[in-house]
Amino acid sequence: MQVGIVGVGLIGGSMAVDLKRRGFADQVVGVENDALHAVAARDLGLVDEIVSYEECIATSDIIVVAVPVSVAIRMIPDMLDRVDRQIVTDVCSTKEKINEVVRYHPHRKNFVAAHPMAGTEYSGPWAALPGLFDGKAGIICNPEDSDLQAVELIRQMYDCLNMRVIFMRAAHHDVHTAYVSHISHITSFALALTVLEKEKNEKNIFDLASGGFSSTVRLAKSNPDMWAPIFSQNRENILTVLETYIEKLHEFRQQIAQYDEDGLKQLIYKANKIKRIIR
Amino acid sequence: MQVGIVGVGLIGGSMAVDLKRRGFADQVVGVENDALHAVAARDLGLVDEIVSYEECIATSDIIVVAVPVSVAIRMIPDMLDRVDRQIVTDVCSTKEKINEVVRYHPHRKNFVAAHPMAGTEYSGPWAALPGLFDGKAGIICNPEDSDLQAVELIRQMYDCLNMRVIFMRAAHHDVHTAYVSHISHITSFALALTVLEKEKNEKNIFDLASGGFSSTVRLAKSNPDMWAPIFSQNRENILTVLETYIEKLHEFRQQIAQYDEDGLKQLIYKANKIKRIIR
Repeated sequence: MQVGIVGVGLIGGSMAVDLKRRGFADQVVGVENDALHAVAARDLGLVDEIVSYEECIATSDIIVVAVPVSVAIRMIPDMLDRVDRQIVTDVCSTKEKINEVVRYHPHRKNFVAAHPMAGTEYSGPWAALPGLFDGKAGIICNPEDSDLQAVELIRQMYDCLNMRVIFMRAAHHDVHTAYVSHISHITSFALALTVLEKEKNEKNIFDLASGGFSSTVRLAKSNPDMWAPIFSQNRENILTVLETYIEKLHEFRQQIAQYDEDGLKQLIYKANKIKRIIR
Repeated sequence: MQVGIVGVGLIGGSMAVDLKRRGFADQVVGVENDALHAVAARDLGLVDEIVSYEECIATSDIIVVAVPVSVAIRMIPDMLDRVDRQIVTDVCSTKEKINEVVRYHPHRKNFVAAHPMAGTEYSGPWAALPGLFDGKAGIICNPEDSDLQAVELIRQMYDCLNMRVIFMRAAHHDVHTAYVSHISHITSFALALTVLEKEKNEKNIFDLASGGFSSTVRLAKSNPDMWAPIFSQNRENILTVLETYIEKLHEFRQQIAQYDEDGLKQLIYKANKIKRIIR
């Protein structure tokens, strides 16, 4: 079996490594637009070979689209124009809009909409990590729109990555990711901007930043080319979450302004319930 | 040398352990209001003995006040009423208000205002960790208001905890901690409240939460009794930071609402500058 990875960055590169070393793929080829990334992907041994987009589609059994969602949304329909037996799958963090553009495609059944929920704040082939997906959730959306064998093969691929496979409606997926992934990125970006604006003397941040700040601001290192399109494509859900989030901040602001320590304790006590969910 | 720890929780307990095992203190006694915490602190071996508040003050060379800042602000003046040769120091996350209440105390020079910038989101004696302070910043505020030997002894104590000692004005300290510590807690608490309100079905959060969410929401597990008073005592600085933070969120909201991907990329690119500071 040959797996083709289009976009050999953090996600594509990590998949490539594990699918090869764990024996799911005999051959892994990569397509990489960025010349520097292409050289790195080969030199780091993430893929066996860098090939052209056309060759990748023609020779692979499974093609994984691992590019920013703004690129994927144009690429996937084009790819489906070119396939017959091949299975196309993606890794994008929003699913509803992708689902819409392929809904009536004659080869819709060759496409399995998926989202392996793993990552780090780094990007590019240098960020690829063996074992990145172990134990994480691998979402497959609207499986009834895909060929049964295609879904089964992608499920096996996720099994090989040690992911917990979850089936979900694309629309639900986008609501949930807005809450448990997208908003976290916005809160981190905004925190970084706030602190950078104030602390012109960078040394103070470095000296005083304890583990708590580093952990909260970690996602602010994430890649603009990946995240801007996600926010844009999941616009409605994210705006709803952001509204609620800003309301919660206003509650804190009001109680701090009023020196209302009991009110603050109540808010924090409620927030502490997250303990039961996140260990 | 005997060190007395008033409040044997995460911070007090972690200090107690390292000061004893690294030989700075021959004897470490603890004062603990909470009966369960007192038993745990002794059983876990954090302190040699649990003693009364009065005995701790009478017999210790250094007394570390490791209680919530709302308690400390009343306790420190009372303690200074009772000391002659003993040195009193604290660990509180806000310094300006404490500084005010002791400013004209006849034993002001026996007090060293300090803040070891380390911690975790857990609390109580069970959360105490050997090595918690290694490599972190230990702030000593307004050292000129303290006896020179007292400052030197507390510096040595922080040396023993492997902290990088930094001297700072109390007012500056409170501005910086608002930016690099207090605001992170508010953003995490608000994130937890937002997600908990929406995701009534807790299983979905658990299934989908990847490392990014866990990291961003981690501080939301923090203790209400510790944090509500900090927010209240550092009111002005926190309100200023919160204002800027909410403005940044409005920028994101506006650009998402307008599908302005280039604008979003610019914002994220600016936020990425935090990379140069936080590794």
